[in-house]
Amino acid sequence: MNRTPIRLREKLKLFDEQWSPKIVAEANGHHIKLAKIEGEFVWHSHEDTDEVFLVVHGEMTVELRGQTITLGEGDLFVVPRRVEHRTVAPHECHVMVINQAGTVNTGEVGGPLTADGDDWI
Amino acid sequence: MNRTPIRLREKLKLFDEQWSPKIVAEANGHHIKLAKIEGEFVWHSHEDTDEVFLVVHGEMTVELRGQTITLGEGDLFVVPRRVEHRTVAPHECHVMVINQAGTVNTGEVGGPLTADGDDWI
Repeated sequence: MNRTPIRLREKLKLFDEQWSPKIVAEANGHHIKLAKIEGEFVWHSHEDTDEVFLVVHGEMTVELRGQTITLGEGDLFVVPRRVEHRTVAPHECHVMVINQAGTVNTGEVGGPLTADGDDWI
Repeated sequence: MNRTPIRLREKLKLFDEQWSPKIVAEANGHHIKLAKIEGEFVWHSHEDTDEVFLVVHGEMTVELRGQTITLGEGDLFVVPRRVEHRTVAPHECHVMVINQAGTVNTGEVGGPLTADGDDWI
């Protein structure tokens, strides 16, 4: 058991890579991650997990087929399992992401933006 | 499916009650809640769920038996299942809490601070 506070702002200073989520905590079989994103991600979905986004710094959009949801700092959105989506950020955005442990960021689509899903900081 | 952003700061304006968590989202059988807390909660534990705390505004402590963890804005902490704890805030603090849907805030201890566990805003 980790008995120290997890300071998100300090954790964000520990990496620069974009589209490479870092795990900061685990709870009930879920990973709580931080990611830095900029540009457009690939369209994908997750068969077995809903996905929570909470913007820590900056602005991003979650695109669904036919709809775009704009999120600023302190805004949260849940993408249900099996719903195709991609994230887009015009400038670098820092976001907390929660999904089931072992979730691959690109779902089953793969490609160059696929990240190691077990990268703790 | 809720296709609108969940703006935590706006949600916090919708209630004043302390120690009465309000559900703002559901994901993978978990509830994401907001709570306003001030003073000392009761010692309790949860048999079946880890519990995530993320401070949105203010400062709070999570007390474990023998240890106190101080959390400021943007700090996160996970209390594992079956670990006795209580939350304390010298001044009103706004916190996001995540645990399994149906979790009772006071665990099995009960008492006057027990809140309705299914209160959405």
